[in-house]
Amino acid sequence: MITEHFVNASVTPLGNLDTLSPHEVARLQDRSNSGLHSLFRQCALAVLNTGSEMDSTRKVMHHFRRFDVQISHKFRDVQLDLINAPATAFVDGEMIQGIREHLFSVLRDLLYVQDELDSCCDEMDESGRITNLVFHILRHAGAMRPHIKPDMVVCWGGHSINRNEYEYTKKVGYELGLRKLNICTGCGPGAMKGPMKGATIAHSKQRISKGRYLGITEPGIIAAESPNPIVNELLIMPDIEKRLEAFVRVGHGIIVFPGGAGTAEEVLYILGILLRDENMEMPFPLIFTGPAESHSYFDTLDRFIAATLGERARGFYEIITGDAHAVAQRMKERLDEVTRYRKSCGESFHFNWDLTIPLALQLPFEPTHEQMAGLNLSRQQPDHQLAAQLRCALSGIVAGNVKEPGIRAIEEHGPFELYGDADVIDALSELLDAFVEQRRMKIDHEEYVPCFRLAHKA
Amino acid sequence: MITEHFVNASVTPLGNLDTLSPHEVARLQDRSNSGLHSLFRQCALAVLNTGSEMDSTRKVMHHFRRFDVQISHKFRDVQLDLINAPATAFVDGEMIQGIREHLFSVLRDLLYVQDELDSCCDEMDESGRITNLVFHILRHAGAMRPHIKPDMVVCWGGHSINRNEYEYTKKVGYELGLRKLNICTGCGPGAMKGPMKGATIAHSKQRISKGRYLGITEPGIIAAESPNPIVNELLIMPDIEKRLEAFVRVGHGIIVFPGGAGTAEEVLYILGILLRDENMEMPFPLIFTGPAESHSYFDTLDRFIAATLGERARGFYEIITGDAHAVAQRMKERLDEVTRYRKSCGESFHFNWDLTIPLALQLPFEPTHEQMAGLNLSRQQPDHQLAAQLRCALSGIVAGNVKEPGIRAIEEHGPFELYGDADVIDALSELLDAFVEQRRMKIDHEEYVPCFRLAHKA
Amino acid sequence: MITEHFVNASVTPLGNLDTLSPHEVARLQDRSNSGLHSLFRQCALAVLNTGSEMDSTRKVMHHFRRFDVQISHKFRDVQLDLINAPATAFVDGEMIQGIREHLFSVLRDLLYVQDELDSCCDEMDESGRITNLVFHILRHAGAMRPHIKPDMVVCWGGHSINRNEYEYTKKVGYELGLRKLNICTGCGPGAMKGPMKGATIAHSKQRISKGRYLGITEPGIIAAESPNPIVNELLIMPDIEKRLEAFVRVGHGIIVFPGGAGTAEEVLYILGILLRDENMEMPFPLIFTGPAESHSYFDTLDRFIAATLGERARGFYEIITGDAHAVAQRMKERLDEVTRYRKSCGESFHFNWDLTIPLALQLPFEPTHEQMAGLNLSRQQPDHQLAAQLRCALSGIVAGNVKEPGIRAIEEHGPFELYGDADVIDALSELLDAFVEQRRMKIDHEEYVPCFRLAHKA
Amino acid sequence: MITEHFVNASVTPLGNLDTLSPHEVARLQDRSNSGLHSLFRQCALAVLNTGSEMDSTRKVMHHFRRFDVQISHKFRDVQLDLINAPATAFVDGEMIQGIREHLFSVLRDLLYVQDELDSCCDEMDESGRITNLVFHILRHAGAMRPHIKPDMVVCWGGHSINRNEYEYTKKVGYELGLRKLNICTGCGPGAMKGPMKGATIAHSKQRISKGRYLGITEPGIIAAESPNPIVNELLIMPDIEKRLEAFVRVGHGIIVFPGGAGTAEEVLYILGILLRDENMEMPFPLIFTGPAESHSYFDTLDRFIAATLGERARGFYEIITGDAHAVAQRMKERLDEVTRYRKSCGESFHFNWDLTIPLALQLPFEPTHEQMAGLNLSRQQPDHQLAAQLRCALSGIVAGNVKEPGIRAIEEHGPFELYGDADVIDALSELLDAFVEQRRMKIDHEEYVPCFRLAHKA
Repeated sequence: MITEHFVNASVTPLGNLDTLSPHEVARLQDRSNSGLHSLFRQCALAVLNTGSEMDSTRKVMHHFRRFDVQISHKFRDVQLDLINAPATAFVDGEMIQGIREHLFSVLRDLLYVQDELDSCCDEMDESGRITNLVFHILRHAGAMRPHIKPDMVVCWGGHSINRNEYEYTKKVGYELGLRKLNICTGCGPGAMKGPMKGATIAHSKQRISKGRYLGITEPGIIAAESPNPIVNELLIMPDIEKRLEAFVRVGHGIIVFPGGAGTAEEVLYILGILLRDENMEMPFPLIFTGPAESHSYFDTLDRFIAATLGERARGFYEIITGDAHAVAQRMKERLDEVTRYRKSCGESFHFNWDLTIPLALQLPFEPTHEQMAGLNLSRQQPDHQLAAQLRCALSGIVAGNVKEPGIRAIEEHGPFELYGDADVIDALSELLDAFVEQRRMKIDHEEYVPCFRLAHKA
Repeated sequence: MITEHFVNASVTPLGNLDTLSPHEVARLQDRSNSGLHSLFRQCALAVLNTGSEMDSTRKVMHHFRRFDVQISHKFRDVQLDLINAPATAFVDGEMIQGIREHLFSVLRDLLYVQDELDSCCDEMDESGRITNLVFHILRHAGAMRPHIKPDMVVCWGGHSINRNEYEYTKKVGYELGLRKLNICTGCGPGAMKGPMKGATIAHSKQRISKGRYLGITEPGIIAAESPNPIVNELLIMPDIEKRLEAFVRVGHGIIVFPGGAGTAEEVLYILGILLRDENMEMPFPLIFTGPAESHSYFDTLDRFIAATLGERARGFYEIITGDAHAVAQRMKERLDEVTRYRKSCGESFHFNWDLTIPLALQLPFEPTHEQMAGLNLSRQQPDHQLAAQLRCALSGIVAGNVKEPGIRAIEEHGPFELYGDADVIDALSELLDAFVEQRRMKIDHEEYVPCFRLAHKA
Repeated sequence: MITEHFVNASVTPLGNLDTLSPHEVARLQDRSNSGLHSLFRQCALAVLNTGSEMDSTRKVMHHFRRFDVQISHKFRDVQLDLINAPATAFVDGEMIQGIREHLFSVLRDLLYVQDELDSCCDEMDESGRITNLVFHILRHAGAMRPHIKPDMVVCWGGHSINRNEYEYTKKVGYELGLRKLNICTGCGPGAMKGPMKGATIAHSKQRISKGRYLGITEPGIIAAESPNPIVNELLIMPDIEKRLEAFVRVGHGIIVFPGGAGTAEEVLYILGILLRDENMEMPFPLIFTGPAESHSYFDTLDRFIAATLGERARGFYEIITGDAHAVAQRMKERLDEVTRYRKSCGESFHFNWDLTIPLALQLPFEPTHEQMAGLNLSRQQPDHQLAAQLRCALSGIVAGNVKEPGIRAIEEHGPFELYGDADVIDALSELLDAFVEQRRMKIDHEEYVPCFRLAHKA
Repeated sequence: MITEHFVNASVTPLGNLDTLSPHEVARLQDRSNSGLHSLFRQCALAVLNTGSEMDSTRKVMHHFRRFDVQISHKFRDVQLDLINAPATAFVDGEMIQGIREHLFSVLRDLLYVQDELDSCCDEMDESGRITNLVFHILRHAGAMRPHIKPDMVVCWGGHSINRNEYEYTKKVGYELGLRKLNICTGCGPGAMKGPMKGATIAHSKQRISKGRYLGITEPGIIAAESPNPIVNELLIMPDIEKRLEAFVRVGHGIIVFPGGAGTAEEVLYILGILLRDENMEMPFPLIFTGPAESHSYFDTLDRFIAATLGERARGFYEIITGDAHAVAQRMKERLDEVTRYRKSCGESFHFNWDLTIPLALQLPFEPTHEQMAGLNLSRQQPDHQLAAQLRCALSGIVAGNVKEPGIRAIEEHGPFELYGDADVIDALSELLDAFVEQRRMKIDHEEYVPCFRLAHKA
């Protein structure tokens, strides 16, 4: 039906972001390495390319290589001029409002993060400084809502799931929405979209016009997982680690749907935190769920966790399959527990300051071949440390699958090599094989060639 | 999952309806024939029974025979006490907000209509008086939105459609919603629900928080077609004829999805109007659509219209199948035409006063055996008159299928008999046979026994 | 500064009133006796003439005899065309928004009352029917706010008060507003404007953007007491008696500032009610106040009440002078008492259904010479009956002062004559003499000739 | 009436400021020199002390020396605990809402400015950096409203004016408000309060519920000129120079009422800017006005300007006395000119980036005896430079009158000495004598001893 695939258009912002200083405009226009133009262009394109089936940044960037975004230099009206933008962002020539909002969320966060990184508090330790930055980005974006009882359910899961699984994520979102809960996801397709869609219908029935559909992404992943326009609060965190920290500090409970390496990374991240003694007392709802047919998937995951992190780790989550209603009811019960806990210890509802996140999970992990090969995949260390090492391993695999620098590294040097003790490596191998077999690694699976090689440590 | 099927609960109203006079409370409590209690109980039950698969009033009323609604007699807080109400209206013990609104919409309209019928304007003619009443009910319910450009798309179609057709109605609703159009339906399941669901998602993407999902029903049909809670403006018109008039005066264009006798009744109603010379100049968008697989359905309908009302009638509608995008684009174009027309002749946007509706289509038709047998199904009369007669015939069949008095009449006296000229009767016969065969007559089709018999007039 | 005194302008309505039926438009255009045009013209002029110093309807009507208002007959946009309207309603050629709202409040109430009077409930008694009508007019105008704790303070007092008294009414309004209370007055100048002005400043400091400034008037008085544009809810009751009933049913407490015959009428009205045994238990805050200098005024009033209605009547009010702060604090305390009382007996907050108003105070009193002469001003009757008779006497004097038919009657037949027992007549005489002497009878006092003559009954 | 003068209370914030990081809380609690506690306490007290007649910081600080504000250390609810706070901030024990907002505006700006000063843009020049900071503070406070046509009228004038002048400022505010204009002042009493009060009444009549009453202050002056609670946007700029820059970049036109040294400082500041060649083309409405009785005041001022800055400077302002209506009409006309100008050159409506402000007017001037004595008060320099020097002289006198460090300096070293050419010194002398004589130097004038001595330069 649509004959033109590229559209030129100008859009003006909404609300307060109208007002940029000349200095900010200059930074957005700066095409040098220290400028923001290149990053802004890439994120803007990702936002406009929503609904696309391309999940590699490279493909997206190549397909739209003639895309550009210019910011007009007049003070009066900040205006973005889009050249060769994806036509799918428009309806009858007019940009979809949700996408327009996303464009300016990107602009807001890129400018702000830059500023904040410039000015850091010397007296804080590294870990505190990172948490503080996460808090400031969220607050600046208006994502803090004090005094609201815990109601933000983070949904993790694959962007490449089958129809049956997708319909199930909608049902869970619907049941959550009927209970007036809000949804936070990584804001791509699949399990990141379904729960929001379901919740939208339920919120409509409950006459909740301010339902929150919070999407948290970062520049490295956004092109592969374009935010869907239902997301009505889009946050661009500076990197994957701060994105993960935002999820667990702003979310009040987590639901894990079937997924691939990225989902496993997220699961290991939260388990690496919950296994810390400092967090022992704190209730943290964590439910793994999928349609009845996905039962074996969670068996595999559960087995992997038992084999690597041990029985204690299994105590942090529940597995419920084939019962969206029960999942939502259980989540609601557990959120009431969170509410009681936070009240009892005077902790805020809107940001989980008390949660201890070890620096190992906060520092950016750069997945080079050397770093990957150097990971310590052995049970001869505290469980939470192994969890952190495994989360790096999976983060690297995600990068090798869909992130541009990762793909390039694989092209140049071959698959990443991971070494470890036999039991850990075997468990990991079983898990990753299942992902490949179940086509959970990429949306476009035709030609999937694993970007990793596992080996027992000598 | 849900073990209790009946729930007792008390609900308080929202907004302005809080304030009833003692006199109004008394009328709602009055269980005598002249009182409103019985009618209110029936409509309240229908509203609460949303999502049910029962489409006969009798079954609903029997299943919930122990249901009652009482209005507390204290002035301070109007409060409805529900006894043995359907559990499906509640989530974890709390009534779904949309349903709660519907309960009080019922109360609002029943009280108001009663008042208005009492006080009528002597100097007007019968037809003008009916139109005036329709206008007043709509205005009183806040359904008039002046100065808004024509954007209200009425969607007609069956409550009993197949999965494929249902998904298609959602897609059309989605495409309409992306174009910022609003939806009005008869507010039951099937084709009356799908477009609203699709539009809800699209409105969310377009950040339209005040999207309108207008449901127009009447006491005779409401139990069989319970409003779904997405409907955020529910209107209870006094009878089927005023409901139809509300559709065509408040809607700016009509989309017809596949359906059964009720849908055919609606099509004949609008054609009966458009065939009038007085309405010749007025643009009135009318699109028949369904998935590609439904093409034959519309062939049948189209043939029926040609055979009974003639070629001219075929000029009032377009048939588009299998292309939700094109339907929405076409509707948008035609609505622009409506806008231009209304501007050019100074007609209001919110109520189509200029449309001439003949008294024959306004007067309530009571489908007794005698009335049905007396219908004049012959081409020896103006087309618009035959359309009116046929619409009565189909109205009677709907009554025999799902309305309580109709079913009772059939039980007592056997099927309705309809007489007419061979060409009309044969066309009608072909149409109705197709409905039966395609299971469009009732949701529960197992045991469908036609409530009509057709015969050539001697 | 302003050189043109008459302005032609067209105004369109705001919000829902946009949508009139052709029948309603016709009624507003109807210049016959049974039509609404004449009444609408008179009230519209009054609303536009705000701020004027003219307090006789006749003068106003004469000065603006070339004024007319036409309603355009197109359905699409209700539009009022004003011809030779007072220039004071405009700022730099644009009508003040508050006045524009008032114009359409007039239109709303005139149309509605007409309808409601047409359709009355046969089964109610006369008194119930009048109360029901008052309730319906208020509800239709959106003046009912359920669930809000009693906070509506009615302020009565003269439209012709001195500067010192006026500043004091502002201070009282300011102190009431600081306590988040709302104001209701008869909506003219003087004591009807000051409290609203003071409350506006206080509400601004308290960040109350929805403060209510309710003005209740009626066609007979509106020209003499044009609503000031701070009034943000204007109600046109059909006659003086329903206006008084609206005050006491919708208000939660009453403050009486110095005033003339109209104020005394109001005081007698409320005392006539409170003296009824049925109302004995009900708390009803009633405070007489003014600046310290006005003390003697309240002495006179107090003496008059003691002499006519007796000591018991004195128990219903408190007199506080020269202390705006104390007045507001006391009113707040008493309103808390009202809240507790209404809660305890399940009475609504928004309309005082329980207050018994005798039919004698509800039936319109037409002040002809005969009616006035026939009043029974004697203590040989229950106190509440004498109060009702005295309120009629004062109502007649107001009519003779500022209402058109009253003035005409005086011109033709000389002053009204009032007869009564010596003690009553002497007390009344002292009161009225004080009003004349203190120039409280009219704004323009130069030439005041009393419209009444008192005589001891033979 | 009020017996207790000191109140202990806890208040919680409104809206987004609820969410402070632990680091921010720590800074507010930090009583060391580098911490914010002392500054916050001083500004908080000023805000609470509204309506007081004390205009010296020292008196205020002394009178409330036992006042303290503590911020609770729990993350969950930011809460301010006030000890021995002025009772006047409360009504019946509850803090006035406007004052509560002001408290948190102070907190917002102190925290933000600190952050912003930490992180500055290296590549900008000093002047650009200051302007950028002013912009960021305003934007962070939400004071930028893009796309709104120029409507912000800055009103300057004395905090110590007579009753007649005060009533006139209310009238001007009323006329501005009727024309839908907003008001910005230095937010103290007198001429900074009157226009807001008048505009509040007018906005109420015009149904403008979002009227803006912008108050711009700074820590050095806030105690002497407590913001009145009508101010609904309070900005605490870091120093007097940034406060002045905020006025002229965010305001669209300026009205100057009678005042003392502070007002003269403001007049010299704007003239110092307008005299720059770079600003020659830009329309900048500047009207001096007061009641008819104040005519001689403006004569003095006008003469002073002529004598020091010359005839050209006189061309930048108009003097209108005794006609509030004409002032508002003229301002409206000139604002239309501003609108046209900004449109024509693509300049923003919300911040006047184009206005050139020389660094000499941006750099903080610290009024020591040495600095004051070193000022170059001679006509042997460009006019705009002399204006800047004179503005420093007057700034020093304000400090000596009401600011704590200034008063202390005077106590220690006697009056400031100012030297200059005879013509300049004589003109200044005449101006200052008039201020003293007319009691415009301080609210409490009983004992005014000039803090300055003027001398011809040798």
